[in-house]
Amino acid sequence: MFKKVLIANRGEIALRVIRACRELGMETVAVHSTADADSLHVRFADEAVCIGPPASKDSYLNVRALLSAAEMTGADAIHPGYGFLSENAEFAEMCEKVGLKFIGPRPEMLRLMGNKVAARAAMEKAGLPLLPGARGVLQDSTEAEKIAKEIGYPVILKAAAGGGGRGMKIVREGQDVRKAFETASNEALAAFGNGDMYLERYVEEPRHIELQIVADEHGNVIHLGERECSVQRRHQKIIEEAPSPAVTPALRKEMGEVAIAAMKKVAYNNVGTIEFLMDEKGRYYFMEMNTRIQVEHPVTEQVYGLDLLRLQLRLAAGEKLDRTQDEVVPRFHAIECRVNAEDPVSFAPSPGLITGYHQPGGYGVRVDTMAFEHYKVQPFYDSLVAKLICWGDSREVALSRMQRALDEYVVEGIKTNIPFHKRILQHGSFRAGKYDTRLVEQVLATAHAEKAPAPKAGQG
Amino acid sequence: MFKKVLIANRGEIALRVIRACRELGMETVAVHSTADADSLHVRFADEAVCIGPPASKDSYLNVRALLSAAEMTGADAIHPGYGFLSENAEFAEMCEKVGLKFIGPRPEMLRLMGNKVAARAAMEKAGLPLLPGARGVLQDSTEAEKIAKEIGYPVILKAAAGGGGRGMKIVREGQDVRKAFETASNEALAAFGNGDMYLERYVEEPRHIELQIVADEHGNVIHLGERECSVQRRHQKIIEEAPSPAVTPALRKEMGEVAIAAMKKVAYNNVGTIEFLMDEKGRYYFMEMNTRIQVEHPVTEQVYGLDLLRLQLRLAAGEKLDRTQDEVVPRFHAIECRVNAEDPVSFAPSPGLITGYHQPGGYGVRVDTMAFEHYKVQPFYDSLVAKLICWGDSREVALSRMQRALDEYVVEGIKTNIPFHKRILQHGSFRAGKYDTRLVEQVLATAHAEKAPAPKAGQG
Repeated sequence: MFKKVLIANRGEIALRVIRACRELGMETVAVHSTADADSLHVRFADEAVCIGPPASKDSYLNVRALLSAAEMTGADAIHPGYGFLSENAEFAEMCEKVGLKFIGPRPEMLRLMGNKVAARAAMEKAGLPLLPGARGVLQDSTEAEKIAKEIGYPVILKAAAGGGGRGMKIVREGQDVRKAFETASNEALAAFGNGDMYLERYVEEPRHIELQIVADEHGNVIHLGERECSVQRRHQKIIEEAPSPAVTPALRKEMGEVAIAAMKKVAYNNVGTIEFLMDEKGRYYFMEMNTRIQVEHPVTEQVYGLDLLRLQLRLAAGEKLDRTQDEVVPRFHAIECRVNAEDPVSFAPSPGLITGYHQPGGYGVRVDTMAFEHYKVQPFYDSLVAKLICWGDSREVALSRMQRALDEYVVEGIKTNIPFHKRILQHGSFRAGKYDTRLVEQVLATAHAEKAPAPKAGQG
Repeated sequence: MFKKVLIANRGEIALRVIRACRELGMETVAVHSTADADSLHVRFADEAVCIGPPASKDSYLNVRALLSAAEMTGADAIHPGYGFLSENAEFAEMCEKVGLKFIGPRPEMLRLMGNKVAARAAMEKAGLPLLPGARGVLQDSTEAEKIAKEIGYPVILKAAAGGGGRGMKIVREGQDVRKAFETASNEALAAFGNGDMYLERYVEEPRHIELQIVADEHGNVIHLGERECSVQRRHQKIIEEAPSPAVTPALRKEMGEVAIAAMKKVAYNNVGTIEFLMDEKGRYYFMEMNTRIQVEHPVTEQVYGLDLLRLQLRLAAGEKLDRTQDEVVPRFHAIECRVNAEDPVSFAPSPGLITGYHQPGGYGVRVDTMAFEHYKVQPFYDSLVAKLICWGDSREVALSRMQRALDEYVVEGIKTNIPFHKRILQHGSFRAGKYDTRLVEQVLATAHAEKAPAPKAGQG
């Protein structure tokens, strides 16, 4: 096992990693920007090193400062969390070069999955289904038009180096593919320094379904089922749940087998998430793979009763997987609401001082957060303040528990999206489990949110 | 199901019941003394009624005020929590008479188990083993001496109406049984208005093992395994865990079968706990039965992945048990530390204002509490401030998680026994799972607590 782990991250995920390390008897080193000096991850780690001013590029993305903090403190491993440098192959390589274990997949995996086009080609070769479309980078707008005609409309154009919706265009029957290609490619060039585009069939009622993969360094791979992440606003996940209402045990088994075979073919190691798009008919298509722990990993932890961070650390240290596929069984339904510091109507960020704070608790409720009364939400980073996770024997129980927990949650001094979560939870399509990635749009379009009966006996 | 439940209690258990009710769609009525007006249970209930001044006898034990609060608010059921009126047969009967469902066993069960002598006689008849001793109330000190000689020393004298260690005396070979009888009987008379005594063999290395019973109103009974509650100070439980390190699966099965048969014979209903004393050889003896939800019920909830309060409410409403014995499987190890407002050395109560508060969180950690920053711990009630529950795949994981969680727990402004919990967790006998009810004495006797290796890799 590692002696001392440096956590190259901040916020709730830094805290999550520190907790797992402490429970495994590993010492921890927190790093922080000047803005985060009073954070819980700084207080709870055994040591803390300031790595720069508030801006991420000068602190949490500052490779030189991170590596020298690791050297200075004698750390023998680095946990990158999610975001920041977590999927940066060069950083992972630099860590390995100076003798620091990068806790995640091998650098070549980060590199492979980091390029969407290469990842899709490799995964198709490894047996994962892809959406009908151009397999490689499009030469030009003429090729885009040609392939669109072949596979049929609607189609979607995507930036090869993209993410978060930038450099993305949907083109429907009768619209101009050539023009859309030029616009999107220019957008991609501006955003990512790379105008390469690909194209594929566009699914009208898409669900975002992702599969949790766990692999050791000895060729053993298991999956921990899927998470449904279709509740998104501008490609940012808001609510995640598992199991997905759209995935049957038979489908889970099939997806799992196909995915495990593919992971074995590329010799994947450590944790990772394969993102699929699922259409109206339950057909699933590989989209991309995230080579790190996900924000929404607690959903899977609660469903399977398993500490994914602990597992990740042990696998990175070279341990063998301690359980087989048959031994991991989904026993609960879990839901996660991402509580963001933002206006629940305009979605504008709402950083600032938390002047009053009370978080929900009790059976089946977990809050992963760096927040507390007097904590100052910084404007320099993403707006995630807390992850509220609720679980129960069934989706119905998990939903009523989440409603109860949201009602108990008090965050004063800043605005949060808690009221928006309540609106989604009250929405008929969400309650019925019949929703896709258009749900948030639909909720927003409902001026007075369509309200399902409140859970009050004798009042329904 | 019930429409509106009045919770005749305060503190964390009132909150626990309110949460379960809300999730089931039942409205809730909180009651409170004037001292508890700002409590969370008052804030989170749909309605709240002040039932009197701070002293328990004038508020939480004020039957008239409780019944009139129920009538006034139109409640159709009363949840008594634990302590206060929860095992009071007369109160349960009065509730039923005015058409309020008392959420607990039938009044006759409360009455039967409320009298220790009657309970032991009934349970022996129903098949549970008793310690060798006098089966009924002792006539006088002469009879006490005669029976002590028959069953052999050491013996223990106990008050028939007793509890909490009052009216209790251990008599060893060569000591005067007659004198001890007189002293204990007088003490019992003063404390409980009843000097009746019984006598039994005294076990030198006793473990407190209790079995969780769940029964519906249709004759179905299951057990949810045991909890080990041997970490006690002056007969007050401090730490509970499940499964017990002293109970094998075979022993659990045997105890469970014997207990279920006994419960069926007396037609027990709702939840309850059978307390056993276990000796050095793993022999178990019925001590008493608690006819209510226990403080330590979360330990069982986490081990079995089951919401006991939800189940209790549904069973009280007449539902059938929704699972069989084969379907309840202990999957985790769980530990609970009772965080009390008291000096960790002198154990003197330490009520007052909480000026800083941060509770631990993350995977496998649950805190059931009414505390928050600015909460005032009242001097009028018991000193329990929070229950910290940690669980994991094994006892070892649960222990390291509990240590990590205790390290994270910040309560400022009052003293708590958190430092004492840390001492117990570091104690070799506790870590080894080889302890009995004398553990706390042993920990206190160790001036500089014998310290097990701290969980730091490479330092042990």
